Amino acid sequence: MDIKSKNINTIISPELKTNYKNFPMVPRVIFGIGCFGQLGEILMPKRINSEAPFIFLVDDVFEGSGLVSRIPLIFNDQLIFISADEEPKTDQVDALVYKIRNDYDQLPSGIIGIGGGTLLDLAKAVAIMLTNKGNAHEYQGWDLVKKPSIYHVGIPTISGTGAEVSRTTVLLGPEKKLGINSDYTTFDQVLLDPDLTKGVSKEQWFYTGMDCFIHCIESLNGTFLNAFSQSYGEKALELCKEVYLEDLHEDEARNKLMMASWHGGMSIAYSQVGVAHAMSYGLSYLLGVRHGIGNCLVFQHLKEFYPEGVELFNEMKEKHNIQLPKGICKELTNDDFEIMINVALSLVPLWENALGKEWRTMATPEKLKSIYQKI
Amino acid sequence: MDIKSKNINTIISPELKTNYKNFPMVPRVIFGIGCFGQLGEILMPKRINSEAPFIFLVDDVFEGSGLVSRIPLIFNDQLIFISADEEPKTDQVDALVYKIRNDYDQLPSGIIGIGGGTLLDLAKAVAIMLTNKGNAHEYQGWDLVKKPSIYHVGIPTISGTGAEVSRTTVLLGPEKKLGINSDYTTFDQVLLDPDLTKGVSKEQWFYTGMDCFIHCIESLNGTFLNAFSQSYGEKALELCKEVYLEDLHEDEARNKLMMASWHGGMSIAYSQVGVAHAMSYGLSYLLGVRHGIGNCLVFQHLKEFYPEGVELFNEMKEKHNIQLPKGICKELTNDDFEIMINVALSLVPLWENALGKEWRTMATPEKLKSIYQKI
Repeated sequence: MDIKSKNINTIISPELKTNYKNFPMVPRVIFGIGCFGQLGEILMPKRINSEAPFIFLVDDVFEGSGLVSRIPLIFNDQLIFISADEEPKTDQVDALVYKIRNDYDQLPSGIIGIGGGTLLDLAKAVAIMLTNKGNAHEYQGWDLVKKPSIYHVGIPTISGTGAEVSRTTVLLGPEKKLGINSDYTTFDQVLLDPDLTKGVSKEQWFYTGMDCFIHCIESLNGTFLNAFSQSYGEKALELCKEVYLEDLHEDEARNKLMMASWHGGMSIAYSQVGVAHAMSYGLSYLLGVRHGIGNCLVFQHLKEFYPEGVELFNEMKEKHNIQLPKGICKELTNDDFEIMINVALSLVPLWENALGKEWRTMATPEKLKSIYQKI
Repeated sequence: MDIKSKNINTIISPELKTNYKNFPMVPRVIFGIGCFGQLGEILMPKRINSEAPFIFLVDDVFEGSGLVSRIPLIFNDQLIFISADEEPKTDQVDALVYKIRNDYDQLPSGIIGIGGGTLLDLAKAVAIMLTNKGNAHEYQGWDLVKKPSIYHVGIPTISGTGAEVSRTTVLLGPEKKLGINSDYTTFDQVLLDPDLTKGVSKEQWFYTGMDCFIHCIESLNGTFLNAFSQSYGEKALELCKEVYLEDLHEDEARNKLMMASWHGGMSIAYSQVGVAHAMSYGLSYLLGVRHGIGNCLVFQHLKEFYPEGVELFNEMKEKHNIQLPKGICKELTNDDFEIMINVALSLVPLWENALGKEWRTMATPEKLKSIYQKI
């Protein structure tokens, strides 16, 4: 894929009023094997007082593991195990917020998410909803959050989603799967310890890493791209290729995939994801298909939109001997297809990024149905 | 240079207490051609009140230019033009702080640096010294700043130094050229508008861009490197190669060099610069040689330390027909050489990064003198 020679349209008369996003970055990051051991000293100065706890939201696969024994719990801190078997939901966020408000007289010192995209997104959303009124689903969209969230920390234990660095938290709501995109969503602190990703199964490693690969392809081939996003996207893509197509030492592969995820998340700053993510959201919404595998299920059939990307994807899939499930949509009714298509087509910025202003002429309901039917 | 296959030593037993830096990143960044026009709306919510001004420190090459007319001055904001002909000095910082304290009854809302590395470093240092007691030279070193600085914004008008993203501000003091390295040094906001770099002369464009190229070579070949810094350094190096060795469209080259500088600065997060920077500091200290050209003057003679890097540098120099000055050190006395050598050798972390713990066996005063004599 000759992305470098891509022509980026950046000629804007200086007299024209520009409207670029003033992008929030994670203000603190620690990277290194074993750096999880420094979490306690990082949190200490952020404790409001001994009554204001830290709430640790942790993927329940770690229950009883060595990782849990290393979580620096003191005072009335609380550890809540959460299953990541399903996509994170708005009512799950509301329930967590309700519980935390009930358990304590004051706001927590902070929320720490430890896990994959699901746990990171829940941590972000809970941190927002502790200071904002109403229910989480009311904030799904762009820049609807009005009040700063409480201090929140992201600690990924699997690499690929980019949730550790992005300004969104993607939730399944009663009506849609959509992110809470806001400047207050971004983590205040991220801890990147590649050793935490050691126990991940090959399949999960592949699906989640492909989330990164696919959003790089979507970002780099999108119409929203500028040089900022391009440089991050190119680096993330290069790292994905190294990890999934070369024969790196395991340690090096873990380090590099963690950085791929980081840069991949940053590449969305001035860009967007595209066709695969839009359609994968439909699958998740109707069938609860998890995000990573959902992206793969869709992306394999997107040769007409991303020819070189799909070719690379197939190479990676073969190298790691990954068998994607088949027949997922075989028994669906016309109404089911309609629901998925509506969810997918409602994500206007994704389609506009992928196909330009005239996207509706290409992304017709019939076209989407024909793709879903192959899955 | 086969940097990818470099073996990074990252195997640390989880029981060992790690001591990684919790790295501060610029929390807000806006990128895009023409985004300078959004500066007013970015600053507005940061105004403490109408009496607390923004102080704009601006490179005096812009005096009377169109850029100045676009600076959003209101209330009692102040614009101070500063020459970047010389390296920024600690007593210059002290004088600016004295003036600002004298001119106003209260602390400013913020300091905005508009220019190259000199102006950006002055803005950072002034923002620190407005809240910290004593003189700037007392803070040259690592983590000596105790109080948070005031809000400060970096707006580069030339690309390469990485000052827009780094946690240092390098100053010439009475005794040394050394950075104020601290978590409070990092800008609160950076505005990256590639159009602002339009008027730069070819020589300055080359020297400043080579600052980025050289610190990437130093970082990627250093012993401190980890996967975080490596990924940024590799991307910055790749962008430098595109800009200086390929034939890009001017707009694209400006965009890409701005991103190279950004990533290059980030690549120092878990790394350090090396031999060229250490020796260039000596040149600056004694002779006032500016940083960009100083790096080039030294780096051309560092083939034994950075063989592939020096080869690439020579290619770039030839392609752009750059003639480096000669005979800079011809008339120096032995005492002069000693001063430069002492300044260079005092920068222990740089040498340790470049050559490992045993650096003193390789970086002898005689070796340094022989290199300085060639310049």
